[in-house]
Amino acid sequence: MSAPVAQRLDWPTLDAGARSAALQRPVQAVAAQVRDTVAALIEEVRTGGDPALRAISERLDGVAPDAFEIGESAFDAAEATLPAALKSAILEAAERIERFHRAGMVQGYTVETAPGVVCERVVRAIDRVGLYVPAGSAPLPSTALMLGVPARLAGCRETILCTPPRRDGSADPAVLFAARATGVQRVFVLGGAQAIAAMAFGAGGVPRCAKLFGPGNRYVTEAKQQIAQAGIAAIDMPAGPSEVLVIADDGADADFVAADLLSQAEHGPDSQVLLLSDSADLLDRVERALQAQLAVLPRADIARQALSRSRLVRVDTLAGAFEISNAYAPEHLILALRDPRAWLDRVVAAGSVFLGDFTPEALGDYCSGTNHVLPTNGAARAYSGVSVASFQNFVTVQSASPAGIAAIGACAVTLAEAEGLEAHANAVRLRLQRGSAPGSREAA
Amino acid sequence: MSAPVAQRLDWPTLDAGARSAALQRPVQAVAAQVRDTVAALIEEVRTGGDPALRAISERLDGVAPDAFEIGESAFDAAEATLPAALKSAILEAAERIERFHRAGMVQGYTVETAPGVVCERVVRAIDRVGLYVPAGSAPLPSTALMLGVPARLAGCRETILCTPPRRDGSADPAVLFAARATGVQRVFVLGGAQAIAAMAFGAGGVPRCAKLFGPGNRYVTEAKQQIAQAGIAAIDMPAGPSEVLVIADDGADADFVAADLLSQAEHGPDSQVLLLSDSADLLDRVERALQAQLAVLPRADIARQALSRSRLVRVDTLAGAFEISNAYAPEHLILALRDPRAWLDRVVAAGSVFLGDFTPEALGDYCSGTNHVLPTNGAARAYSGVSVASFQNFVTVQSASPAGIAAIGACAVTLAEAEGLEAHANAVRLRLQRGSAPGSREAA
Repeated sequence: MSAPVAQRLDWPTLDAGARSAALQRPVQAVAAQVRDTVAALIEEVRTGGDPALRAISERLDGVAPDAFEIGESAFDAAEATLPAALKSAILEAAERIERFHRAGMVQGYTVETAPGVVCERVVRAIDRVGLYVPAGSAPLPSTALMLGVPARLAGCRETILCTPPRRDGSADPAVLFAARATGVQRVFVLGGAQAIAAMAFGAGGVPRCAKLFGPGNRYVTEAKQQIAQAGIAAIDMPAGPSEVLVIADDGADADFVAADLLSQAEHGPDSQVLLLSDSADLLDRVERALQAQLAVLPRADIARQALSRSRLVRVDTLAGAFEISNAYAPEHLILALRDPRAWLDRVVAAGSVFLGDFTPEALGDYCSGTNHVLPTNGAARAYSGVSVASFQNFVTVQSASPAGIAAIGACAVTLAEAEGLEAHANAVRLRLQRGSAPGSREAA
Repeated sequence: MSAPVAQRLDWPTLDAGARSAALQRPVQAVAAQVRDTVAALIEEVRTGGDPALRAISERLDGVAPDAFEIGESAFDAAEATLPAALKSAILEAAERIERFHRAGMVQGYTVETAPGVVCERVVRAIDRVGLYVPAGSAPLPSTALMLGVPARLAGCRETILCTPPRRDGSADPAVLFAARATGVQRVFVLGGAQAIAAMAFGAGGVPRCAKLFGPGNRYVTEAKQQIAQAGIAAIDMPAGPSEVLVIADDGADADFVAADLLSQAEHGPDSQVLLLSDSADLLDRVERALQAQLAVLPRADIARQALSRSRLVRVDTLAGAFEISNAYAPEHLILALRDPRAWLDRVVAAGSVFLGDFTPEALGDYCSGTNHVLPTNGAARAYSGVSVASFQNFVTVQSASPAGIAAIGACAVTLAEAEGLEAHANAVRLRLQRGSAPGSREAA
């Protein structure tokens, strides 16, 4: 038998330290070099504007187009060159993504919390948002859909998209087609940390955006973190390499499981893959299937690197596997189990869950309807994937009539006095005194 | 007439630079000293655990209790010592906060996006959350309510609360009573950046929390930022000094407006206050009312400092006032207008809005039902106030039957191939080939 493709572990025999090590992600500490490079790029764009952006693009991408913004004719050309099957697939995926996201939109509501006191939540689209669509090893039109569709449903006044230039300085036609299909207003060929800085500050014709979305390499994600940390723009979520955790029982199809692990592993050498099973036999079969499928996989080199840091873990019970999964909080969780829905209640922390043998992660990546921009690196413990709400603000509103403040004013005065905030108490008392006076205006 | 209490500006006469300066918040750049001090404290807690926490408390708060955790008897004692009126007010406020927050809870949902493809959103409480309730100039039982109530509604398994010790090492009884009323499980007398670090890493008996909530001084907010930036725990939102923007017309009550401005100004010297009106006469009247009310205000010194950096601005039109407000994106927005509801649609970015003459901000601070933990410092452009959803994760789930993958699989394969992700395509193809084979298990 050939060398093992992934680490095999027997959970019951591991001590606490080994268990903790088994769930460790590949080291994610941002190298000081990345941090400093990104900080310098951000500062260069902030102070240098358009010429700086042009110089950086020339330096890092080897091209600086006459204009960063894509014109109408380039969109038309993209549409003309794309294969019809790809265009159909993009439109079909967009439609299902829209159907799922639209159904989950959060609504405003109104409650009379006391007689004469009306409290509300109103929903407001974030005015202008910036989407980043990477094109590292390959352009990702699917990411344009996953960000562009909910931005449109949210009703953002303006949606900007940046995507890195190809060698010749043009943008990928599939990304352009997807952007246009979702209603993105303006697309710029601009990549890396400099694109993030341009959207955060407004530079190179890119208007300033209040919130930035999308995955990217470590320069892009570090730039988003620095921008958010400095309070310049909000970001969707912290990001790290993609990851999957599969829980499979004895009856799972080893070829399916191996294919799902490889889908994750081919993303990049730092992708993280975990398989938990109560069946040592299933683990053996998956290992053989991995070898067989790797032999014919175009991106096998990348996948092998990712697998070398991944783990196939035997657990005593499936219940124990869910405890491990919740501690790990995977971005993607596949339940290759006999009755997967019966186990769903046990899932506490995960980005997106795939139930059963016929739901490969690739469906969620592209076209089941759910979003593929998901929390990684354990962030699923306290962050959720992108949804329409990610593009909206929820503003609370209250309105008290004189009768309303008469009903609840004393409560506010008591609490304000207890907190030593006399002006707060006074603002309420003044109204209580004047509420019944003639000539006072009433709130609606 | 006495010296002006706040800066008066005439918007139509200002050039672009002066307008931009007028909307500038008091400088928020975190001093390198604060950043370094906080980083050192976090590191000390991370590596030193319980003894370090004890040493820091001794050093910074002058007390290190035998145990940081509040015992049952201290809760009982707090309840016994508090005035009945305060206890009633706390319970009354909690009840209205619960009523408003419960009505806005986001629900799960299910959509069949294609025949045989079921997509869902399920709602999961964040497992363990940490609340910080400051007690700088005064303890804030209201903040315990604003965080504790939605945490309970969310269903968090465990809710931790940290609040700084008083001189004698005990916790404020009103905070303890409020914490217990909302169902917070464990309270620790621990303040400052060290409390944030303890909740993030788990130290001093404080268990590790996945998300940290609550306002605080600049050490606390800087600690939250550093913890979030390092990916150790999530936080509710970036925080800065409290602020209010009032839009008032000629018919507004100058005493009410002045009282609202002062409620904000008394929070701290760096509180930010803006008043916009199309009536110079109203601005004059508010200025006189400010002088009169300041003369009898206990915290007048603090309020005067805040007002000295604040602005009373004459605008040409009320419509123009809303443009300025949206650019500023205030935490609190008061509409002291004749028909305030008619203007609500113009509000694009704000934390919480107060409609009309009888809805002082103090109502929202305490007991209208809305949350008072709100985005400051312009964050309202892309962040919302705390709600039940802040304590929950939204997990997407998908389930395809063999018929389901037959319906949408080709779309996924086309997109995967376009993106050069062959293992993704393969994971789908394998299922398409085997879907109709005998013996395959079907997802529910």
